[in-house]
Amino acid sequence: MKQSIGFIGLGHMGIRMANRLLEAGFPLTVYNRSANKAAKLVDRGAKLAACPAALAECDTVITMLADDPAVEGVVTGPEGFAPTLKKGAIHIAMSTISVALSRRLAEQHKAASQHYVAAPVLGRPDAAEAGKLFILAAGEKVAECEPLFSAMGQRTFPIQGDAWNAHLTKLGCNFLIASAIEAMAEAFALTRKGGIDPAAFLNILTSTIFTAPAYKNYGGMIAAGKYQSEAGFTMPLAAKDVRLVLAAAEELRVPMPTASTVCDQMMQALGRGMDHLDWSALGLIAADNSGLPRAKE
Amino acid sequence: MKQSIGFIGLGHMGIRMANRLLEAGFPLTVYNRSANKAAKLVDRGAKLAACPAALAECDTVITMLADDPAVEGVVTGPEGFAPTLKKGAIHIAMSTISVALSRRLAEQHKAASQHYVAAPVLGRPDAAEAGKLFILAAGEKVAECEPLFSAMGQRTFPIQGDAWNAHLTKLGCNFLIASAIEAMAEAFALTRKGGIDPAAFLNILTSTIFTAPAYKNYGGMIAAGKYQSEAGFTMPLAAKDVRLVLAAAEELRVPMPTASTVCDQMMQALGRGMDHLDWSALGLIAADNSGLPRAKE
Amino acid sequence: MKQSIGFIGLGHMGIRMANRLLEAGFPLTVYNRSANKAAKLVDRGAKLAACPAALAECDTVITMLADDPAVEGVVTGPEGFAPTLKKGAIHIAMSTISVALSRRLAEQHKAASQHYVAAPVLGRPDAAEAGKLFILAAGEKVAECEPLFSAMGQRTFPIQGDAWNAHLTKLGCNFLIASAIEAMAEAFALTRKGGIDPAAFLNILTSTIFTAPAYKNYGGMIAAGKYQSEAGFTMPLAAKDVRLVLAAAEELRVPMPTASTVCDQMMQALGRGMDHLDWSALGLIAADNSGLPRAKE
Amino acid sequence: MKQSIGFIGLGHMGIRMANRLLEAGFPLTVYNRSANKAAKLVDRGAKLAACPAALAECDTVITMLADDPAVEGVVTGPEGFAPTLKKGAIHIAMSTISVALSRRLAEQHKAASQHYVAAPVLGRPDAAEAGKLFILAAGEKVAECEPLFSAMGQRTFPIQGDAWNAHLTKLGCNFLIASAIEAMAEAFALTRKGGIDPAAFLNILTSTIFTAPAYKNYGGMIAAGKYQSEAGFTMPLAAKDVRLVLAAAEELRVPMPTASTVCDQMMQALGRGMDHLDWSALGLIAADNSGLPRAKE
Repeated sequence: MKQSIGFIGLGHMGIRMANRLLEAGFPLTVYNRSANKAAKLVDRGAKLAACPAALAECDTVITMLADDPAVEGVVTGPEGFAPTLKKGAIHIAMSTISVALSRRLAEQHKAASQHYVAAPVLGRPDAAEAGKLFILAAGEKVAECEPLFSAMGQRTFPIQGDAWNAHLTKLGCNFLIASAIEAMAEAFALTRKGGIDPAAFLNILTSTIFTAPAYKNYGGMIAAGKYQSEAGFTMPLAAKDVRLVLAAAEELRVPMPTASTVCDQMMQALGRGMDHLDWSALGLIAADNSGLPRAKE
Repeated sequence: MKQSIGFIGLGHMGIRMANRLLEAGFPLTVYNRSANKAAKLVDRGAKLAACPAALAECDTVITMLADDPAVEGVVTGPEGFAPTLKKGAIHIAMSTISVALSRRLAEQHKAASQHYVAAPVLGRPDAAEAGKLFILAAGEKVAECEPLFSAMGQRTFPIQGDAWNAHLTKLGCNFLIASAIEAMAEAFALTRKGGIDPAAFLNILTSTIFTAPAYKNYGGMIAAGKYQSEAGFTMPLAAKDVRLVLAAAEELRVPMPTASTVCDQMMQALGRGMDHLDWSALGLIAADNSGLPRAKE
Repeated sequence: MKQSIGFIGLGHMGIRMANRLLEAGFPLTVYNRSANKAAKLVDRGAKLAACPAALAECDTVITMLADDPAVEGVVTGPEGFAPTLKKGAIHIAMSTISVALSRRLAEQHKAASQHYVAAPVLGRPDAAEAGKLFILAAGEKVAECEPLFSAMGQRTFPIQGDAWNAHLTKLGCNFLIASAIEAMAEAFALTRKGGIDPAAFLNILTSTIFTAPAYKNYGGMIAAGKYQSEAGFTMPLAAKDVRLVLAAAEELRVPMPTASTVCDQMMQALGRGMDHLDWSALGLIAADNSGLPRAKE
Repeated sequence: MKQSIGFIGLGHMGIRMANRLLEAGFPLTVYNRSANKAAKLVDRGAKLAACPAALAECDTVITMLADDPAVEGVVTGPEGFAPTLKKGAIHIAMSTISVALSRRLAEQHKAASQHYVAAPVLGRPDAAEAGKLFILAAGEKVAECEPLFSAMGQRTFPIQGDAWNAHLTKLGCNFLIASAIEAMAEAFALTRKGGIDPAAFLNILTSTIFTAPAYKNYGGMIAAGKYQSEAGFTMPLAAKDVRLVLAAAEELRVPMPTASTVCDQMMQALGRGMDHLDWSALGLIAADNSGLPRAKE
């Protein structure tokens, strides 16, 4: 019989990941602060928990929440699941959280004879929908989680060492995406101001040395000047991730001037009220700062 | 009968490009400051010119030299070919030069009833050897040059507008490579200091969202800590290119904070005497600045 | 009769400030984690408290501790003074803490019918010794604290608005000092590498447009290449302050690229093991990064 | 009898400096591209030259022009004075030019048996008017120039070594002013967004640790949000100076991340069309980027 799963956090990513688990036949109980987001999953057979603590009977609890306080709240907050979770149960932290919180969770679960797996993902909602995520997984019980991972993802990359290294790796990846966006933002501003067609420039990049999803996706948005993204990754979330990168860098004493630059530009985006835009809107900041006219929206 | 070609600059790239033209059957005369580099080409049928001016009879002259002064020297210097080049002849500037020089060359050739084509390339010496370069070409006579381009490259990207836009496009590409190197340098320092194996991190990047040559090539060098590169692109050349990016940005009034950061890091590399290393040695700067031990060489 | 004062934190600054209060005739009880630092003050009439909670009878409690956790610990930690402090008593937070903690303290004391005054200081230990500090003070009860301030400082600057604005103002000042140090570090590296005598350059600066203590003090250390500082402000403390600046900037959504640059350079200093040096050792980083030889120590 | 002086460049600074020489009794011939600016000086006894070459009979020629091309034009251009200047005559270059041009001038004059003195100044037009400039002077014949300097300035700082070191020193000073402006721009944005009155913050700075003209002048402009400056130093001139700093840093291989940051911010100012504003308008960029409302103009 398959292990029972508790799933907390039904945002753009979580709802699709939970659905994949349901389709794979795992007994699933879900919790979300706004319970109405759970309706479709409940229709398909998922149970609905009234609070995180109600997931304490599950064999495995997955968290997929936007930031550190949200995750810490459902784990060790007033109605958190950790105090009542059974011995030997596994908590899989799949959203992007700080290295510091990931370490703290590992220690707390260990002290309670529970297990902790850090397993953040690469991929946007469409990949979650199709079960095509990439999963970066670390922790003693990674092997036990593989059936879940293969329901949600196309490939699991095991990360050596402490569980929180998976979150550090994920932060490294997000930093590289953010810096690629910022670099493209500047390069498109430069070439566009020189009179070069953005679509033509994008075509050159993605046909030659930057034949990669990160450049195609975000480059496409910058070239088109389209920064509205329904299921996208908004600027405040992105800025939060870059701050987590810098916090990890501070703890490890690693200077990251490019991360600092990206953070500064995101701060401009937030200062100017671009909260609703995708993080590729760094392209809009670069264009504005160059005095380029905005595309008509 | 095929057009006669003069080729100036037989460095790592130029000698391989000239050889491709020779193999394709173009009558070829070459010039290089150090004439001995021309020996192999002469053995295969190329003529050797004693000075750039001796190429004035060619239908087309290609320059493939390291920097602005070198190019300007062979074009309009004391023994330059421009004053005696026949009307209607074409000068193809294929190395990476400043937008300002590219514009000046366009104007000078036009005033002399000669033609100017800007056609910088993407690719390293192995691509030049195999005729697999990408060529960014602009100027009125691009179509006439296509037979030459197809001997040297796998694909020509025509750039709209003024000829020097091709050089601006090329600078945009080089900036993006440089910024990807610097971002990787920082990301590898961060993850390595956290205890993550560089090869494993590289594998994740290049298997998921950064499946592109720029990341595979330079990421591989950083992950391995191997910055010696026989036919590579050394730090002084790279720093020169980033300066050309910033000069173009200054003229167009485009702020490029990431380019500035990359320039600062390259200045550190030069300040510390890393002239002989590949530009991926930004990874060494990031590692040193984090207090990471150097790999044994 | 003078109000009774509790003083927590007898570091380089605190011990001198407490001594000024004692000399001015205030009944003084002190607490320090390492009790032996209190010996001289006890000899002169101060009482020694066994824990922060033992200060609960004082009319006013001053905290002068190195960082947020230390301050929060003595206020609301297990043996903290806040839970037992009498109604109407005043807590004066005089060290540099985060805006977020300052706000939290204001709210907690208010909820307990206690008063909170934020009063960080400008000046180094010699100024504290001489009662020559500058005090930036905010909060409803600033006027009541003026007798204490005039014992410790040469001038009090009242800050309008919420109490934590005093800490924000202090962070703004510390940022300006840090950025002046970094700018000098770069300027001295530039001119020194060009062959200009650092002492001569310093003399020009401080005789013309930079006739200010910040330039004389820190410029003097950089010009001399002397970064050991017995009672100085070490790099880890400085880095902490710059992080507090960036945290405040993040909350207020203010991009601060110069603060980011300073932070990056401090991270280099920490990465390379310069924990024991004064923050003016940014001058050493700039010199090292330029390939300049180190002065013999 | 006093030496005869040629003076080229009658801008905001030059006209006041020339007037001081006239008042001190030096025989003066002036040249300016727009001759009408010379009218007042001619009324007081100065002669007007029709072209720079017409100054070739002077014992000493002073240049005070906005940028490198302007200076190089009047020295070695078609009607430049250098080819006909007599042996033993002195050229004093008093405006801010690149280290590279200063070196080139030194070499050219030496080859022509003429003398070269580099003597850039610190101070704004009001200081020039009052003869209160600070003069940074280098070159073999500095002593001979002292009578001129004391007519124009309050103090001469002799710079050791090669003449162009005076220009490098001046660039170092200008960089420090620019970085102080940028740091203040950020600090004022931070504190203002937190609700702190700019005038109060300025008062604290300039009463405590930043009691220096650079902070009073530019801090005052930022605090007031007044960036119009009749006799000021406009953004394009400032950006040019920062570029000269970075060019010198590049030649000497000195990384200057703060200079790069300042340059980026100035590029924003130019990109957004702030050519007519004083360089303290970096304060406007910082405010805009934070989403702060503009003061009514």
